[in-house]
Amino acid sequence: MADPIDLWFSVGSTYTYLTVMRLAEVERVSGIPFRWRPFSVRAIMKEMNNIPFGNKPIKAAYMWRDIERRAEMYGVPIKVPAPYPLTEFDLANRVAIVGAGEGWCSDYARATYRRWFQLGQEAGSEPNISDSLREIKQEPGRVLGLANSGAINERYEAATDEARKLQIFGAPTFVIRGERFWGDDRLEDAVSWHKHGRLLS
Amino acid sequence: MADPIDLWFSVGSTYTYLTVMRLAEVERVSGIPFRWRPFSVRAIMKEMNNIPFGNKPIKAAYMWRDIERRAEMYGVPIKVPAPYPLTEFDLANRVAIVGAGEGWCSDYARATYRRWFQLGQEAGSEPNISDSLREIKQEPGRVLGLANSGAINERYEAATDEARKLQIFGAPTFVIRGERFWGDDRLEDAVSWHKHGRLLS
Repeated sequence: MADPIDLWFSVGSTYTYLTVMRLAEVERVSGIPFRWRPFSVRAIMKEMNNIPFGNKPIKAAYMWRDIERRAEMYGVPIKVPAPYPLTEFDLANRVAIVGAGEGWCSDYARATYRRWFQLGQEAGSEPNISDSLREIKQEPGRVLGLANSGAINERYEAATDEARKLQIFGAPTFVIRGERFWGDDRLEDAVSWHKHGRLLS
Repeated sequence: MADPIDLWFSVGSTYTYLTVMRLAEVERVSGIPFRWRPFSVRAIMKEMNNIPFGNKPIKAAYMWRDIERRAEMYGVPIKVPAPYPLTEFDLANRVAIVGAGEGWCSDYARATYRRWFQLGQEAGSEPNISDSLREIKQEPGRVLGLANSGAINERYEAATDEARKLQIFGAPTFVIRGERFWGDDRLEDAVSWHKHGRLLS
């Protein structure tokens, strides 16, 4: 099997909806597996004073329209704007950390993003979080207990520190052989880099 | 002839190098003409407290690498990082306003961006500005005299105000029938929207 591409992601990033919904098809067509790496993009962006949409209503409105147009291009249903930013950002991502350890992170990402971007239910909060877990056959009580444990929080912080050292500053970021590709709109660039070591137009 | 797409641009935007260097080919293949609309993206970004790269060294380094990889994809020579930000941003763009009125704006954009991104000579400053004008058969003394006149400055401010009303917040921005597409990486989206009223993947 081909080497994986690391997908550094945070539940809470808006453009990540597009990646989450189309990644299985990209994996199928490219033959490249992706490794889900949840981290706190929020912590890193705060450290960098990187505030793309807060207090920038014109830019935020454009972002929703851009995502909406591109979702239609990919055949992905969408209802914008989705609730933003997330109230329970860290919990949403600590659940993803549990899922990455147990092998159901991609299923969780699809389930929780679908509720967030199609039903308008915030990821990380109820009813989204428990309904998403039940949909993928995970018992909410067990998973949320783990997600609130010190051990999982340590893994979350370690992953964020690893992202920091890789100079990741946004999500989603695709990493392949030290090359970073930031944004859903660089997913094809990452695949091209993996296959050819350069970008093909 | 097809309706034009408005290309709102500022000499000084980095990703605009890619658009400037590949636009003639995009026009040829698509059959769509582009209308060059110089404005001050810097004024608008300051008003919005939108500072994408200043004091963000990790993000800035990524930006240069991203542009470099994509320039290679488009077969465009490049030497990064280019001097940034421009010392004489406004002068570079007031010259573009003169060029838009006289019909040589695209030639000026290519000439000055080539010197900036291939030779490391700042756009808007000497020797770039006069050499670029001479290359396109414009007399530097005459053009710079106009570029420093009150009449041209008024047109520059009026163009910036028009951009503000169109809710443009970055450059390049492509506008077609009220739809905005921001960034060189949305040029194909703009062409698709012009042709089909939606994005084709």
